[in-house]
Amino acid sequence: MKVNGKHYRTVWMKGTSVFMIDQTRLPFEFLIFEAKSYKESCYAIKAMITRGAGAIGATAGFAMVQAYLESHGDEEMLFQAKNEIEATRPTARNLFYAVDRVFNAGKKSIENALTTALQMADENIEEARQIGIYGNELIGDGFKIETHCNAGWLGFVDYGSALSPIFVANEKGKNIFVFVDETRPRSQGARLTAWELKNENIEHAIIPDNAGAYYMSKGKVDMMIVGADRIAANGDVANKIGTLEKAIVAEKYAVPFYVAAPLSTFDIHCPGGNNIPIEQRGKEEVLFQEGPSNNGTITKILVSNPGSDAFNPAFDVTPAELIKGIITEKGIIKPNRESINKLFS
Amino acid sequence: MKVNGKHYRTVWMKGTSVFMIDQTRLPFEFLIFEAKSYKESCYAIKAMITRGAGAIGATAGFAMVQAYLESHGDEEMLFQAKNEIEATRPTARNLFYAVDRVFNAGKKSIENALTTALQMADENIEEARQIGIYGNELIGDGFKIETHCNAGWLGFVDYGSALSPIFVANEKGKNIFVFVDETRPRSQGARLTAWELKNENIEHAIIPDNAGAYYMSKGKVDMMIVGADRIAANGDVANKIGTLEKAIVAEKYAVPFYVAAPLSTFDIHCPGGNNIPIEQRGKEEVLFQEGPSNNGTITKILVSNPGSDAFNPAFDVTPAELIKGIITEKGIIKPNRESINKLFS
Repeated sequence: MKVNGKHYRTVWMKGTSVFMIDQTRLPFEFLIFEAKSYKESCYAIKAMITRGAGAIGATAGFAMVQAYLESHGDEEMLFQAKNEIEATRPTARNLFYAVDRVFNAGKKSIENALTTALQMADENIEEARQIGIYGNELIGDGFKIETHCNAGWLGFVDYGSALSPIFVANEKGKNIFVFVDETRPRSQGARLTAWELKNENIEHAIIPDNAGAYYMSKGKVDMMIVGADRIAANGDVANKIGTLEKAIVAEKYAVPFYVAAPLSTFDIHCPGGNNIPIEQRGKEEVLFQEGPSNNGTITKILVSNPGSDAFNPAFDVTPAELIKGIITEKGIIKPNRESINKLFS
Repeated sequence: MKVNGKHYRTVWMKGTSVFMIDQTRLPFEFLIFEAKSYKESCYAIKAMITRGAGAIGATAGFAMVQAYLESHGDEEMLFQAKNEIEATRPTARNLFYAVDRVFNAGKKSIENALTTALQMADENIEEARQIGIYGNELIGDGFKIETHCNAGWLGFVDYGSALSPIFVANEKGKNIFVFVDETRPRSQGARLTAWELKNENIEHAIIPDNAGAYYMSKGKVDMMIVGADRIAANGDVANKIGTLEKAIVAEKYAVPFYVAAPLSTFDIHCPGGNNIPIEQRGKEEVLFQEGPSNNGTITKILVSNPGSDAFNPAFDVTPAELIKGIITEKGIIKPNRESINKLFS
């Protein structure tokens, strides 16, 4: 994706550092964050400086390379680092996938770990590109598409999952409109997806998460596409909190509900959605909001009753039966055990 | 309801002024707004200094008294004022109910208009109290109750509709917990409902609007109670945006979904939900948020991508079939034409 005419990946490695677009500053500032050690990469994932299934995976892969570089053959230190990286975010499957792959590759040599991590980032881009090509076939001219959270370029190394078909449809000259769910509490829709769509000149409007049913009930939404953080062997999908709610509403109004994700998001050893661990994040994400005030200074404000408690589950699980199809880099499949098995055989 | 030991109504009239708790400043500041003319009362309704079906109704009734006082018998001016008051918020039935009643009463004398408006405020309190008594019967000990927006004390002259049963259950010593939907974009849940519940020492947590399905799917929600802005003759209910979404999710997980509202919220001349006008509010309510920064200064910040558009429908319509019952001051009724007809005969 290009920003101000220059092409960027969401995350990349150079020397011993991992570089990434700082997604906590977007859309107000475009800054690059440098993680000089695996610990700093862990911090970046935890604090959501980088976020989104694919971007977390790529960063975790690079962090594992850093762990190899920093542990100088000390196995205990290496294992400790691996555990730390895996503990950053519990739900995203791509994280564990990437750490495992780079860890195993590094058993041969550090160079092999690095080559694997770099290759995985390249693969991530190619998978996202393919998802776009397959997903585009579902999008008719004039379609109004709803999406939740950000499963765009910023959630991957490039292109994205849920947004990739939208980018391709736009390139092909289709007339499309995107309803962007704000996606509280961190507002990745209002901040990141809206930023990406504006960057690509795709017509869109931010809507409160509460307004999805309103537009679906009026027949204004032709389809919904979301990303995924982990897909179980039976086709259940863990994704950003609120996805389940939208899938239920979409079923009610017969709006086709699609999930877009690469194979690296599937956890074929996880039998069903109930087995996916759900991250509970801090209540301050609900109670406070951050953004530029009138004078441009990024300011944190309280947006709720002082002293009230808040709960902040970061993900929910959408059962397979609510999902019309999963758009992967190998084609669009039905969300069931049989189709998923076939995908991996 | 008491604030710092002193009893307040949400809105009241004294002399020629209408006084109200400024709900745009809560929960950060407790201030009383004085509307010295019907035009200022109109502004207060439009800007949501006062809000909520019952409170809008009472304020509109008082504004109509002000219109009588200010028009000095000039019929054209009186009609103009009536139109202006009615144009402040299109969805809330109580507004039209109150304006009509005070307007008709004023044909006899201004004193009669005032007496009627004052009586309506008293009735509003008594209705809300009765709703609490009836609604409490539905609440079991240990219940976890979800509510959306604010249909509490602040939404009425006192007690509230959806929160009134919760207040009664708490008074009766029942152990209850309230999931408070944040209710974007204006966050009446996080700001007003949470404030009321904390004021009454009722255990609660604010949840993002996205998290309703998560908790319902896990069996954590025993019932949901919401208010109403207008109820059609067939039992369809217009209420704060997001209510429809919750009702659909509640149906999916067999969570009993109740609406609490006085008879003045029913529009028996409105055949169904499709006939209820839905207010579209400004996009700045979605794009910006306001609250105190670190140093306590109330600050407005941008919480979305600069330059992106936003849509802001203020209400949606929940079809009768998703509602288990409507809690009124005359008892709990089924949301259908027959039961509603009986209520008004």
